[in-house]
Amino acid sequence: MDLSVVKVYGMSSSGNCYKVKLLLTQLQQPFEWIEVDTLKRETRTPQYLAMNPNGKVPLLETGPGRYLAESNAILCYLAEGSAYLPANPWQRAEVMQWLFYEQYSHEPYIATARFIRRFLRNPDEPTLPLKTERGYIALKVMEHHLGSREFFVGGAYSIADLALYAYTHVAHEGGFDLAVFPAVRAWLSRVSRQPRHIALAA
Amino acid sequence: MDLSVVKVYGMSSSGNCYKVKLLLTQLQQPFEWIEVDTLKRETRTPQYLAMNPNGKVPLLETGPGRYLAESNAILCYLAEGSAYLPANPWQRAEVMQWLFYEQYSHEPYIATARFIRRFLRNPDEPTLPLKTERGYIALKVMEHHLGSREFFVGGAYSIADLALYAYTHVAHEGGFDLAVFPAVRAWLSRVSRQPRHIALAA
Repeated sequence: MDLSVVKVYGMSSSGNCYKVKLLLTQLQQPFEWIEVDTLKRETRTPQYLAMNPNGKVPLLETGPGRYLAESNAILCYLAEGSAYLPANPWQRAEVMQWLFYEQYSHEPYIATARFIRRFLRNPDEPTLPLKTERGYIALKVMEHHLGSREFFVGGAYSIADLALYAYTHVAHEGGFDLAVFPAVRAWLSRVSRQPRHIALAA
Repeated sequence: MDLSVVKVYGMSSSGNCYKVKLLLTQLQQPFEWIEVDTLKRETRTPQYLAMNPNGKVPLLETGPGRYLAESNAILCYLAEGSAYLPANPWQRAEVMQWLFYEQYSHEPYIATARFIRRFLRNPDEPTLPLKTERGYIALKVMEHHLGSREFFVGGAYSIADLALYAYTHVAHEGGFDLAVFPAVRAWLSRVSRQPRHIALAA
């Protein structure tokens, strides 16, 4: 990766977009942030769809016409060669496992419950009970894993922790109570004390 | 990765499990397949949950107590160093993008619609209309990308193609009509003609 300034198209209140901002900050890599409001359908304009046909944020631009979508793919690309993505093949595999876990078993329930409650302000939304049930299952899996570990993989902070932190630390905004997950809460605290940590925009 | 025989816990009719079987076959790597029936809740037994606390298949076992979950993480691990995962950093990033796309924007709609129609035999399931709508959006994104390309990344067959093939080639079982996606159909044919390709169990 060259050292030119990358651009990030993102919505500041989005956990998926926050992941990219947090990693770039921790890597001390300069970046330009272009705010995109998904609630105003700014990801559905012809101009945006030309950059990302899937119409989602975040989107990384590393050069003219060089766009990369999917928050966790962006994390892998940016973290390559740093301490945030282990070089050991098995540890890398475990990082990947947790990144896919985050996008398949965690984000669709915990992040979307937050979106429905906080942004749509619709606590009677019919899918919320199922999202709540599945979200608690995801938190239980995390609690089990963190019961005997400081971080998700290899005893050190990695993009697996960063990705899972993004929506777990605001799970209460989706109606989740972390009181019964002490290992998760201790881990959240450890992640938030990592060098150059920044907060999600309020 | 050592050369001992790995074990795969999987359900033969599952596209996610088929991904692992297909890649191991194409890599000409011997493996032992342990059939696990999710419909009989065999992923919910204490024995299985001890191996994978998230209770899902496929699961790769590379040695005593060394388990890796998440189909696309398994693909990344197994394909490392082969032609199926490019060494070029940008092409790797694009492969990752499509793997996350598959798990977030494609599989939750196309694979689950297939599951509901074919295995649960419940065409009146209330979430099917939304899954159908989102599945067609996923197929449109693929059609757009493949309109000017032979394969998803770098002009060659990779685990991005393999992963997306798994449920796209049986999308009709989920009620999707691929007639309006000629580029997707031509790509499916190209993928199926790759060396050592095997079919999904009927």
